[in-house]
Amino acid sequence: MTPLPAAEFEEELRAIGEQRYHHLHPFNERMHAGDLTEDEFRGWVRNRFYYQLNLPIKDAFVLTKLPGSEHRRRWIKRITDHDGTDGAEGGIERWVRLGESVGLTRADLHDDRAVLPGVRFAVDAYVAFCRDRPWLEAVASAMTELFAPDLLSRRITDVREHYPWIAPSGLEYFRTRLTQQPADIEHLLELVLTHADTREKQLACARALEFKCDVLWTLLDSVQLAFGKDA
Amino acid sequence: MTPLPAAEFEEELRAIGEQRYHHLHPFNERMHAGDLTEDEFRGWVRNRFYYQLNLPIKDAFVLTKLPGSEHRRRWIKRITDHDGTDGAEGGIERWVRLGESVGLTRADLHDDRAVLPGVRFAVDAYVAFCRDRPWLEAVASAMTELFAPDLLSRRITDVREHYPWIAPSGLEYFRTRLTQQPADIEHLLELVLTHADTREKQLACARALEFKCDVLWTLLDSVQLAFGKDA
Repeated sequence: MTPLPAAEFEEELRAIGEQRYHHLHPFNERMHAGDLTEDEFRGWVRNRFYYQLNLPIKDAFVLTKLPGSEHRRRWIKRITDHDGTDGAEGGIERWVRLGESVGLTRADLHDDRAVLPGVRFAVDAYVAFCRDRPWLEAVASAMTELFAPDLLSRRITDVREHYPWIAPSGLEYFRTRLTQQPADIEHLLELVLTHADTREKQLACARALEFKCDVLWTLLDSVQLAFGKDA
Repeated sequence: MTPLPAAEFEEELRAIGEQRYHHLHPFNERMHAGDLTEDEFRGWVRNRFYYQLNLPIKDAFVLTKLPGSEHRRRWIKRITDHDGTDGAEGGIERWVRLGESVGLTRADLHDDRAVLPGVRFAVDAYVAFCRDRPWLEAVASAMTELFAPDLLSRRITDVREHYPWIAPSGLEYFRTRLTQQPADIEHLLELVLTHADTREKQLACARALEFKCDVLWTLLDSVQLAFGKDA
């Protein structure tokens, strides 16, 4: 099979996001509609923190297999974006501040027993995917980032509107991501569109992106089941 | 068994370096005595390059398992030290310049077929060790760095004295390492002396350091056998 032209392949990937990214998940739709209870919001923040904690780890696995210094130099930014540097707070600390703004302590966030089993399974599967699969698929699984900016900018607006009990400073994580993501997205597209040079590789990338959509979706399923109004 | 006090444990580790670090290897002694042929010197530079290329990879594996953001923030410097950043050339590029100063092209250095099998086995074993062993042992295996500054400062002097055909700019890699290593060594000692809190863990760290000495030693064995005067 000959590969799709890059533009069509990119469309194929974007169509996956339109259909399967977690912006469509009922729990997310309720968040944006102002429909979450405080308990639900806290349950999401606490459990999503486990995902945040694992981002630098999965990105370090990607780093172990990227082809050469130049790509590592660009990818490593993702790790410092979350871990921070001596001069700059990282995303994990910003998420702690989101937690505090919804009434969770740092200890609550780091209490490993509070992670829902379904969330742990999904996040651990993502880390294992990045550890075990070829670098191109591990990179492709990060492409949910292509769909994040729209969601994040709506989230900042909607959370401020509907959840006045959350201090605006708690939303700094999302604001910062909006400034960090354009460079990440550019690198992702460059890597995937260039290196998926057979139709088989393109399909493997599409499957990796679907898998990652499932990870994010399942995370919300677990939170919904455990903390949802009818739970 | 109760653990040794930190100072005694550090002495135990330093004694391993005194007995088994590659400064004692005959090939290294001949390098410092001015006894290497051009062919031997090039053979060493070319094969050691495979080790250099793998340093950021083994360090990314360590990064995947270090306990938390703060230690990753300190460890990640090792990766950028070798890969460089947008503003600063990295160690891999500096080693390319060492290669060029001994008459190897960039293509020679990157020609995978030129890596001696014994060198490949040793270096790959080091990467696998960092991938597969607990983080404390992976970290401990980096402790050969404790013995590097003495060797590197002597190397700069001895190479300049005995090998006038090598342009002094080729030695920039070694000069830079001398400025990078103190922070690395401080972090290594802090991690290993603090976290090896049982005698069993201390012994595992000592074994990891012995293993790493074997890696460096075997690399020189292979180079000596392939390029040595009597080869």
